[in-house]
Amino acid sequence: MNKKINLAVDCLGSETSLKEILEGINESALRNDNLFFTLFGNSIEIERAMENISPLNIRSEITHCDEYILMTDKPTEAIRAKKNSSMHLSVEHVSNGKSHAVLSCGNTGALMAISLLKLKTIASIKRPSIASIWPNIKGESIVLDLGANIKNDPSSLIDNAILGSALAKALLSIAEPSIGLLNVGIEDMKGNEHVQKASEILLEMDKSKQLNYYGFIEGADISNGKTNVVVTDGFTGNIALKTAEGTALMVQSYFQKAFKSSLFSKLGYFFASLSLKTVKERLDPRVHNCGIFMGLTAPVVKCHGKSDRLGISYASDIAYSLIQKDVNKKVENILINEI
Amino acid sequence: MNKKINLAVDCLGSETSLKEILEGINESALRNDNLFFTLFGNSIEIERAMENISPLNIRSEITHCDEYILMTDKPTEAIRAKKNSSMHLSVEHVSNGKSHAVLSCGNTGALMAISLLKLKTIASIKRPSIASIWPNIKGESIVLDLGANIKNDPSSLIDNAILGSALAKALLSIAEPSIGLLNVGIEDMKGNEHVQKASEILLEMDKSKQLNYYGFIEGADISNGKTNVVVTDGFTGNIALKTAEGTALMVQSYFQKAFKSSLFSKLGYFFASLSLKTVKERLDPRVHNCGIFMGLTAPVVKCHGKSDRLGISYASDIAYSLIQKDVNKKVENILINEI
Repeated sequence: MNKKINLAVDCLGSETSLKEILEGINESALRNDNLFFTLFGNSIEIERAMENISPLNIRSEITHCDEYILMTDKPTEAIRAKKNSSMHLSVEHVSNGKSHAVLSCGNTGALMAISLLKLKTIASIKRPSIASIWPNIKGESIVLDLGANIKNDPSSLIDNAILGSALAKALLSIAEPSIGLLNVGIEDMKGNEHVQKASEILLEMDKSKQLNYYGFIEGADISNGKTNVVVTDGFTGNIALKTAEGTALMVQSYFQKAFKSSLFSKLGYFFASLSLKTVKERLDPRVHNCGIFMGLTAPVVKCHGKSDRLGISYASDIAYSLIQKDVNKKVENILINEI
Repeated sequence: MNKKINLAVDCLGSETSLKEILEGINESALRNDNLFFTLFGNSIEIERAMENISPLNIRSEITHCDEYILMTDKPTEAIRAKKNSSMHLSVEHVSNGKSHAVLSCGNTGALMAISLLKLKTIASIKRPSIASIWPNIKGESIVLDLGANIKNDPSSLIDNAILGSALAKALLSIAEPSIGLLNVGIEDMKGNEHVQKASEILLEMDKSKQLNYYGFIEGADISNGKTNVVVTDGFTGNIALKTAEGTALMVQSYFQKAFKSSLFSKLGYFFASLSLKTVKERLDPRVHNCGIFMGLTAPVVKCHGKSDRLGISYASDIAYSLIQKDVNKKVENILINEI
C-alpha cells in the first residue's frame, strides 16, 4: 500500500475562489487514493465550503488563519511581516515535516522568498528555479527557469539541467531525458559567455554519463519538441513562456475570427467543432499553468493567480507525483554524487 | 517626381534560387516606379534569368562576380577573406554612394560584420540592431533587437528604442510610436539591472518628449499589440522571435490535424477553407521574415536564407520605404539632437 501523502494548501491571497481551490484538489484526491490535505485559511469558510465535497471533507484537516500575503506585497516585506499568513504557515507545515509539499495560488515572488527561507535549497543549489510542462508537437517537455533567477550565470544553467532532467524522469517518465540549452543559434560559437561556459560543462557531464546533453537549441525547438528538457535563465525563460502563450492565443483568435467571417465558415465550424475542441483542450493554459519550484528540499507548486478547478487539480497531481516519485531526494543524490 | 532609388542586391550565397530573387525584386519594382537595382552575381546567369522579367530587365545593371560568402563562414573570416564576394561588393556599392541600400539572403553574421565595417554606425550607436515587423492582434509592431547584439547593456536598449521608434514612424506610419521595454513583469522593481537602468533613462526621455515610452511590457504583450515598438536585447529577442514562430506553427499544425481527424471535420474544412486561407496569409512567415539592420549609415535588409519570391518582394519594399522616407538620416538627427 502506498504511504500517505500530505499536501499543505494555501487557500488565501489569490484571485482563485475558495470553492475552485477545494473542488480542484478534490478532483486530484479522486485520482490519488493516498492523497491528504492540510488547508490553511478561514476554518469556518472552509468547513462550510467543503461540506458536500467528498472525499476532500474526510481527507482534510484545517489550520485556521486570517492573515494573507497580497499579490502586490514585495517578497522582502512578505518574509518579514505577516508571519502568520496562510502562505508562511503552509510552507512551515512542510519544513516541520507535517506535510510533504506546498500548493499555492498566491504571490509568486513571496512564495519563492518564503520557501527559500524555510525549506532551503538542496545541496549545492544556490537558488531555486521555476519549471513548467510545455506542450510541443510530439508531446510535452520540461522548460526551466521561467523567472526565479533572472541573473544569468553558468552554474545556474547547470543546476537547471540537473533539476530539469530529474523532473522529466518523474513527470514525463523518460529514462534518460535529453537536455537542450536555449541559445541564439545551434553552432558552437553562438551565444554569450554564460551559455558557452555552461555548454562546455554539460558536454563533460554528458561524456561521464551524468546527463544526456543534446547541445544548443533555438526558440522554435521548444515547440518542435527537439529535447525533453529546455534549459535557460529566468529572464529569457519568462519572456519565452509569455511570448509563446501570447502567440498561441493570437493564432487561436485569428482562427475564431475566420470561422465567424462568412456563412460558409460558420457552417465549416459547425461540422468541425468536435475535432476543434481537441485543439482547444491541448492548448488549454490551465493544464500547463503551474510553476514547479525546483531545487528546494521539498516540492512547492505555484498555480496561476487566476486558476480554476481544472488548473488546481492538475497542479495538485503534479505535487503528488513529485512526492510519490521522491524527486527532491533523487536530485539531492545526483548533486552529492556530482560533488 | 520621386528621385531614383537604387538597391544593391546580393544574388549569391543563399538557398534562395536566382529566379526567386529576381522575380521577387521584380514584383517590388512593379509596385515602386522609381526603384532600380544593381545585381551582384554571375552576369551570364543573371542576364539569361531576367530576359523575360519586366520591368526588372530595363531597371537593372549587373556587376559580375563569382565569389560568395558561405552560410557556414564565420563573420570574422568573411571580413578578411573573399573581399570580392557578392556580399562585399553589394555593401561597398552603398558605401561608395552608388546604391542607397543593400538586400541580401546570405549569411546574417557575415552581412552584419561587413556592413558594420563598410557602412559604419550612425552617430553614437555602438552596434547595429536587427529589427523586424511582428504581427499582433491589432496589426503590427516593430521588435528589436532580434540577435545582432547579444550583450545586454542599458545604452544598447536606449539605442534600440530610438531606432525602433524611427522605424515605426517610417514603416507603420505612426506619428508617436509607443515603446515597451520587454521584462519579466510590469512592476517597477522587476527585472535585471540593465532593464532597470534603461527604463529610468527612457522615462526621462519621455518626460522631455524625445520618445513615447510606455514602460515595461511582458512577452504576451508582443502579440497583444500593447505597444508599437518592443525593445529588448539581442539574446532575448532572438529567442522570443523563434519561440513565437515555433508556437504559431505548432498551433496551426494542431488545427490541421484536427481538420483531418474525421469525415465531419474534413467537411468543415471544406466549407471554411476560404476564410481559413486568410489566417494562413496573416501568419505567413514570408511576409515577416526579413531582418532590418538598424543603426548603420544606410539600410541593410536581410531576407531569410530560404526566402521565396514573396518574401524577397516584401523585403525589397521595406528597403525602398526606408530610403524613400530617409529613416537613417532621421535617426541620425534624433541622436545628434539628443547629444
